[in-house]
Amino acid sequence: MCGIVGIVGKSPVNQIIYDGLTVLQHRGQDAAGIVTIDDGKFRLRKANGFVRDVFQERHMQRLEGNMGIGHVRYPTAGSSSSAEAQPFYVNSPYGIALAHNGNLTNANELRESLFKVARRHINTTSDSELLLNVLAHELCESKLMELTTSDVFEAVTRVHKQIRGAYAVVSVIIGHGLLAFRDPNGIRPLVLGQRETEQGVEYMVASESVALDIDGFKLVRDVAPGEAIYITEAGELHTQQCFEGAKCVPCIFEYVYFARPDSTLNDISVYGSRVRMGEQLGLKIKREWADLDIDVVIPVPETSCDIALEIANELELPYRQGFVKNRYVGRTFIMPGQAQRKKSVRRKLNAIEVEFKGKNVLLVDDSVVRGTTSEQIIQMARDAGANKVYFASAAPEIRFPNVYGIDMPSVNELIAHGREVNEIAEMIGADELIFQSLDDLIVAVKGDNKALTQFETSVFDGNYITNDIDQEYLESLESTRKDNANKSKSLPLETGLELHNDE
Amino acid sequence: MCGIVGIVGKSPVNQIIYDGLTVLQHRGQDAAGIVTIDDGKFRLRKANGFVRDVFQERHMQRLEGNMGIGHVRYPTAGSSSSAEAQPFYVNSPYGIALAHNGNLTNANELRESLFKVARRHINTTSDSELLLNVLAHELCESKLMELTTSDVFEAVTRVHKQIRGAYAVVSVIIGHGLLAFRDPNGIRPLVLGQRETEQGVEYMVASESVALDIDGFKLVRDVAPGEAIYITEAGELHTQQCFEGAKCVPCIFEYVYFARPDSTLNDISVYGSRVRMGEQLGLKIKREWADLDIDVVIPVPETSCDIALEIANELELPYRQGFVKNRYVGRTFIMPGQAQRKKSVRRKLNAIEVEFKGKNVLLVDDSVVRGTTSEQIIQMARDAGANKVYFASAAPEIRFPNVYGIDMPSVNELIAHGREVNEIAEMIGADELIFQSLDDLIVAVKGDNKALTQFETSVFDGNYITNDIDQEYLESLESTRKDNANKSKSLPLETGLELHNDE
Amino acid sequence: MCGIVGIVGKSPVNQIIYDGLTVLQHRGQDAAGIVTIDDGKFRLRKANGFVRDVFQERHMQRLEGNMGIGHVRYPTAGSSSSAEAQPFYVNSPYGIALAHNGNLTNANELRESLFKVARRHINTTSDSELLLNVLAHELCESKLMELTTSDVFEAVTRVHKQIRGAYAVVSVIIGHGLLAFRDPNGIRPLVLGQRETEQGVEYMVASESVALDIDGFKLVRDVAPGEAIYITEAGELHTQQCFEGAKCVPCIFEYVYFARPDSTLNDISVYGSRVRMGEQLGLKIKREWADLDIDVVIPVPETSCDIALEIANELELPYRQGFVKNRYVGRTFIMPGQAQRKKSVRRKLNAIEVEFKGKNVLLVDDSVVRGTTSEQIIQMARDAGANKVYFASAAPEIRFPNVYGIDMPSVNELIAHGREVNEIAEMIGADELIFQSLDDLIVAVKGDNKALTQFETSVFDGNYITNDIDQEYLESLESTRKDNANKSKSLPLETGLELHNDE
Amino acid sequence: MCGIVGIVGKSPVNQIIYDGLTVLQHRGQDAAGIVTIDDGKFRLRKANGFVRDVFQERHMQRLEGNMGIGHVRYPTAGSSSSAEAQPFYVNSPYGIALAHNGNLTNANELRESLFKVARRHINTTSDSELLLNVLAHELCESKLMELTTSDVFEAVTRVHKQIRGAYAVVSVIIGHGLLAFRDPNGIRPLVLGQRETEQGVEYMVASESVALDIDGFKLVRDVAPGEAIYITEAGELHTQQCFEGAKCVPCIFEYVYFARPDSTLNDISVYGSRVRMGEQLGLKIKREWADLDIDVVIPVPETSCDIALEIANELELPYRQGFVKNRYVGRTFIMPGQAQRKKSVRRKLNAIEVEFKGKNVLLVDDSVVRGTTSEQIIQMARDAGANKVYFASAAPEIRFPNVYGIDMPSVNELIAHGREVNEIAEMIGADELIFQSLDDLIVAVKGDNKALTQFETSVFDGNYITNDIDQEYLESLESTRKDNANKSKSLPLETGLELHNDE
Repeated sequence: MCGIVGIVGKSPVNQIIYDGLTVLQHRGQDAAGIVTIDDGKFRLRKANGFVRDVFQERHMQRLEGNMGIGHVRYPTAGSSSSAEAQPFYVNSPYGIALAHNGNLTNANELRESLFKVARRHINTTSDSELLLNVLAHELCESKLMELTTSDVFEAVTRVHKQIRGAYAVVSVIIGHGLLAFRDPNGIRPLVLGQRETEQGVEYMVASESVALDIDGFKLVRDVAPGEAIYITEAGELHTQQCFEGAKCVPCIFEYVYFARPDSTLNDISVYGSRVRMGEQLGLKIKREWADLDIDVVIPVPETSCDIALEIANELELPYRQGFVKNRYVGRTFIMPGQAQRKKSVRRKLNAIEVEFKGKNVLLVDDSVVRGTTSEQIIQMARDAGANKVYFASAAPEIRFPNVYGIDMPSVNELIAHGREVNEIAEMIGADELIFQSLDDLIVAVKGDNKALTQFETSVFDGNYITNDIDQEYLESLESTRKDNANKSKSLPLETGLELHNDE
Repeated sequence: MCGIVGIVGKSPVNQIIYDGLTVLQHRGQDAAGIVTIDDGKFRLRKANGFVRDVFQERHMQRLEGNMGIGHVRYPTAGSSSSAEAQPFYVNSPYGIALAHNGNLTNANELRESLFKVARRHINTTSDSELLLNVLAHELCESKLMELTTSDVFEAVTRVHKQIRGAYAVVSVIIGHGLLAFRDPNGIRPLVLGQRETEQGVEYMVASESVALDIDGFKLVRDVAPGEAIYITEAGELHTQQCFEGAKCVPCIFEYVYFARPDSTLNDISVYGSRVRMGEQLGLKIKREWADLDIDVVIPVPETSCDIALEIANELELPYRQGFVKNRYVGRTFIMPGQAQRKKSVRRKLNAIEVEFKGKNVLLVDDSVVRGTTSEQIIQMARDAGANKVYFASAAPEIRFPNVYGIDMPSVNELIAHGREVNEIAEMIGADELIFQSLDDLIVAVKGDNKALTQFETSVFDGNYITNDIDQEYLESLESTRKDNANKSKSLPLETGLELHNDE
Repeated sequence: MCGIVGIVGKSPVNQIIYDGLTVLQHRGQDAAGIVTIDDGKFRLRKANGFVRDVFQERHMQRLEGNMGIGHVRYPTAGSSSSAEAQPFYVNSPYGIALAHNGNLTNANELRESLFKVARRHINTTSDSELLLNVLAHELCESKLMELTTSDVFEAVTRVHKQIRGAYAVVSVIIGHGLLAFRDPNGIRPLVLGQRETEQGVEYMVASESVALDIDGFKLVRDVAPGEAIYITEAGELHTQQCFEGAKCVPCIFEYVYFARPDSTLNDISVYGSRVRMGEQLGLKIKREWADLDIDVVIPVPETSCDIALEIANELELPYRQGFVKNRYVGRTFIMPGQAQRKKSVRRKLNAIEVEFKGKNVLLVDDSVVRGTTSEQIIQMARDAGANKVYFASAAPEIRFPNVYGIDMPSVNELIAHGREVNEIAEMIGADELIFQSLDDLIVAVKGDNKALTQFETSVFDGNYITNDIDQEYLESLESTRKDNANKSKSLPLETGLELHNDE
Repeated sequence: MCGIVGIVGKSPVNQIIYDGLTVLQHRGQDAAGIVTIDDGKFRLRKANGFVRDVFQERHMQRLEGNMGIGHVRYPTAGSSSSAEAQPFYVNSPYGIALAHNGNLTNANELRESLFKVARRHINTTSDSELLLNVLAHELCESKLMELTTSDVFEAVTRVHKQIRGAYAVVSVIIGHGLLAFRDPNGIRPLVLGQRETEQGVEYMVASESVALDIDGFKLVRDVAPGEAIYITEAGELHTQQCFEGAKCVPCIFEYVYFARPDSTLNDISVYGSRVRMGEQLGLKIKREWADLDIDVVIPVPETSCDIALEIANELELPYRQGFVKNRYVGRTFIMPGQAQRKKSVRRKLNAIEVEFKGKNVLLVDDSVVRGTTSEQIIQMARDAGANKVYFASAAPEIRFPNVYGIDMPSVNELIAHGREVNEIAEMIGADELIFQSLDDLIVAVKGDNKALTQFETSVFDGNYITNDIDQEYLESLESTRKDNANKSKSLPLETGLELHNDE
């Protein structure tokens, strides 16, 4: 998962992009980058690390200009070199910089055709560099120096036809404007905001509405699936649907876990959806587990707090914040001659004994992935004196890999892959284990949004909306993951800094 | 405020100290340091920054040895140079390193006598360097190379007689052992833990019990006020009361705000004390503000969550987490030719509209200091559509400066200094403002601990337990603060890196 | 002035390029960069600083591959930002990296046509980025993915027609090979070398033959003016003359000052040319200044040592190394409230009194530019007790600006601009001042090389070989220089790091 | 070998110390440090690296004050950690910082007595930390806060009695003044200079007179062996002989190799001594090798240039600078899977063929240590076409270890250890090999200085002036060397950063 922002403003935008990236930091903590355009030149700063560490005073001073884009990156399997930090840049045609959130499912095929047809060199394994070059190649088709708005939209239309997968994109074309677009299924989110200033209207696009809030932009609407937004340097907004038959099938996991509660995506409040997840799950427990002798409902912080609170309300039981999250988790160092210590959830959480001792507790988490964390948390509850430990997950069983930009472990590491609930319960040591059903989850996320009829739910049901995911693709995914893992072991230092000037 | 840890272990202690410091990071985020002793040599690493940034692999590898101490520092007014990071070191006698949490109220006097009597040079303005040299000078009194346990305790006894204020201290004497002690009023906390290993018992002292938890040490007890704990290199534990007439008068602010909820200090669970603060405050509202038409109770995250939840329970009202905290707050950069932007609470918090719109909300915070944050939060609530905004503070009005190690603003900046509650309410824009009474706060913190009869509550009532605080002292404090502020403005870079090898 | 190297080898080339750059360091100490090609990817490292500082272990480990190019940069007026470090890169067509030594005299014109015709964005003020894009655009003309050797040579032929000035170029085209070429007048040097290995022949091109020597490459010959050298990835060497009417008019200043004495350029030993400069100058002194009562000949180290030694031989006078050069010159820091100290030659040189006291000395330097250094050196000689101080310059009077890549001060700062020898002598305080004549200099440099008939001598006589230098051009040069100087003053930090990821 | 400076000035001394250290950089390129005293506080900056790299603007700005000392360190066997950079500091008594050049031969003994008697902890293996603590302990004997000049001299007198070896020392005592002294044999050099300013006289001490020159200080005289110089903060100069029976026996190697030619040490010009070395060696060749058919005399740059020139004059043969020194030598990187490349003199030197081809050359070097470099240089001469290669060394055969601060290889690595001249000649491949005799060397260095009767010449004749060097000591030296070498191999990073805050 990644986060993106783009702004065409009336005064310098560096601080706004920076602020936007800090509130999108939860979407990617691996690398960050900003490109601005000033006086006909690009200014770039990108590196591995948190936003607050990547951008120092000296970098910000150089990121001049009233237009720019920004990116935060999640470490996807094996490719966390700083050479792959975004935005990416090509100088021909025009000069274009681009950043994106998502994953292209036909990357290998694109890579080959770009090389053969367009003679464009791709120096990294990032599909963002690929996407940029596909766009660049299509913009070349317009043979004139003057690039009209319809040239831009036609190029995006051709791009949509070539690439598959999930993508929300921002890019800047020097001398022209900012271009943003979203895949035809709207899998990844992208919102449009605006702000009135004395110099005129400023526009901003971002992965989540919360990035608009922090600098006073108002949410206008979501960018529609397949739609392109083009804001000229002068500040004129143009929009066009560039894909026939686009429909909105957003990733449901954004609501379960990724997005910030205070964001509104696809016209649904994330917070509201979580409250309803608690409501639905509470109703299910009432309905199906009426005889559970729960004394207290305790969330596993912190996504699940709102969910757990609503379960407690529904069940008319006390809600208690019995786990304290360590805000400043450090590293485990491997000293010469020592074995690596087991990763322990104890480094991240601590239990308040009084809320566990002698009680039957219902622990609530947003989801269960590998199950190892859940197992350790349940053990912590027992160590703190819990009598019985029940466990509820706001998401259904995760059984399939994600191919749309969420970094999930290998399918064989998914605890629910090929296992029934009672087996899982036993493995994680829960006295009872309750999963939300997928239908209930959909009901909860939809709320009263009548426009939305479908979600991208492949990790739960294996239905991939892009219709191009077959066993072969999934296996190649798996083997790439392994290759990268091995590579990073064998090399003495991070590598792959192709054509990237690290320091 | 600062955090300290000290360990005499049976195997390398660097990771344990590091882990301990990360969970004490909330006590000081300005600088961090570790000293270990290995093979007759000290190993030191200290610098400004978070624990996770200060200690890299290469530092950890050098911090060898089975005994050591660590420190995290809060930025006290004007003295946040990395030259003042702790621990400090003197090589005579024996070789001693020391770190402390607190503030000495007779520092100027000590400085002069050390210079005149002991001919010991103090190169920083840190009172920890002072304290170390007082201790070193007293240890010199023992004229022999062999330092007996009683020599050590006698030295501490003499130290207690010379220094005044609040202090919790850890130090290591090379070739001998680890020494920890706490001021005769026990103002600052210090706990003792132990862990059984195959090689024998390991001992750990720390500012809070939570630092014991993370590496599996069990809380044995608090170090008593005036008591000294001496653990030899061989691992023998010696303890002695070194001050006649010591009594326990802990800082009440540790419970209100500083300490982690999952810590137990002076035999009181911090979490429990906060739940009771909510209970007491809820009862007061019921009693005195029965006619308040509150729809929902909303905490200002995150210390006050436990408090607000209990108020809601007491008032039988819904509890809602209506504010979302930005976990990754960035900086505001000042670009050439731009004015500094106003510090905005909006960078730290965001409101979820649905929980405010059209409602009468009771906001709960742990305390009100300057009032500027409260004012902005109330405004945020109104902007989010709140109808009426009531505000409750778990701590009483803060009217006096703190001289025991808590970095408070100047007395004139305290909103409650010389003002009545209704004036404050008007200034911050609250429809109603409710402070906990000091008596209720004491009842809440005490709980059923019968041993504790008194707390250090000077910021509320102006009673300074050390009996040495007069108007002159407070004024000199104020002027030092101003001097430092000016100094840091006029110098092009941080200065005062006296005898400190920065990079 | 800059230095370049390029290698197509049979094993990793990073160390060879690095070594080559260190012995070319005298040609540019401002920035350094290396690009290698490994497994279909470019690897890049470039930054401001000396070669030994720019390339650390971690960078070298990533610079894998058997083919690559390197560059060291001289700070040209005002454009010493690290964003302009070379090599530069474009990804379309094919993926090309390029570095060059020289200066294009029609850069502004090229900039405009690239933008209008080729829609290629140029993000820096470097003419190397420009040159790369001209080449890239011409390589695009070949419409096929397969790029034949004749395609490459035809592209170079078209490049020569478009660009003017002095240039020696190395570039690598991924998947194809290494391309090097030299301007049609051969103003800047470029040599070809080869090394036999068990795996086959390796080829190397470099600015000076000394870069071949250090890793055991043998000098094959100079790259001819207008010629292109193309070495395929497989190691096949192709060469072709790509400019009709090319002739060899090398910059004479390479011999006077820039090149290393142990280099052979255009089939002339630099050392030999300097010995002959001494000979010619000695003969002139004998001839025209027979009555000068010289006691000792003393070089201003260190280019002029070989020259001065030969003058002494010619005059049958003792030669003494009376000045000691400070090898480790530091900076002058400006402390707050202090005025900048005058730059003093005393920081660079120290006199050995015994060789000056009471003597009439003949000081020998390679050239006189501003005259300020000469003035200070003469004063040092007097301070050391010299009786009379005569001064000889191996180069004639410098009266005109250089437009072919040598960073000279503004024409008004040239002491010989508009002044006669006796005026200059008076200004620098010499008892007598002797300049080599241009004819003698040419005789000296030529030696017995009959093939060479002409040199680029514009700084002495104002004749610019490219025939495109008019007053307007020189004035625009002057004003750019001033702009840059002002720019670098007003900005708080180095700027212009357009699209460059600094740290 | 190291270099030291100390100044009591009338205005800030940071730049002067910095400048002084840059011209002493040849004495130590491993680490650098400066301590100044400002407003009752020490300011320190020290780190590994060259002076120009260690001190950046930000460090210089903090090094305020009118009094200070500086140090450059040579890497002594195995102890090149930055924890051992000088100056060192103790805070008791008074606050003292100290730096020194030399080596204590009774370090182990001192270490033990300091620990037992003075209870002073020594955290490094540096004998400078030891020396500082011996001095500190003796200054403690004066029981008063006021430290009189005679207290200081008495302390130095007692220090001289306790320590043995070679030492030139500068130290600053806060609140009092600058103290400098030299061992009773005057093995290491130390000079005193002064400068008149409008504010009064400023004093400077330094290892070599060249450090005085660069900032306009005049050489007053050498500090006498056994003498102490004490300059109070107010600028009063006091001097006293503190050792009965001191005599001047300076290290002869300073003249052969270490010192700069433009320095005057012990009232002897280093340049003059080298010219005389050439004269003596020329006479010897004339006398004993009259039939040698030498065509040209070529120095191995650059210490030997002045020597070789005089040999050529004496023999009436041409002098030619046939080797060019690479000014910017880089590193050899070890890539994964590659063997370490042989260290090659070719990275440092290059031959100019024309001066060798077909000639009989006499190569002149200052000394022959391991012989490996000489062997390679002779091979270079042959590769360049030399007919016969004769080799002359300005120093006699080096056969014994140095214990007075010069880092020599292990005795078994000395090529002259246990070998005759003809054996050595064969090993290095010289057609003839000529060593200066020790008597001739002494004659050359003495010149017409009648006061000097003896030199420290132990590396040539095995006579150690301090009379405390026995076989046991030399063997322990050898084994420490080996231990350190092993240690540095086994540890993943530089270690021993005891109590040193690296970054």
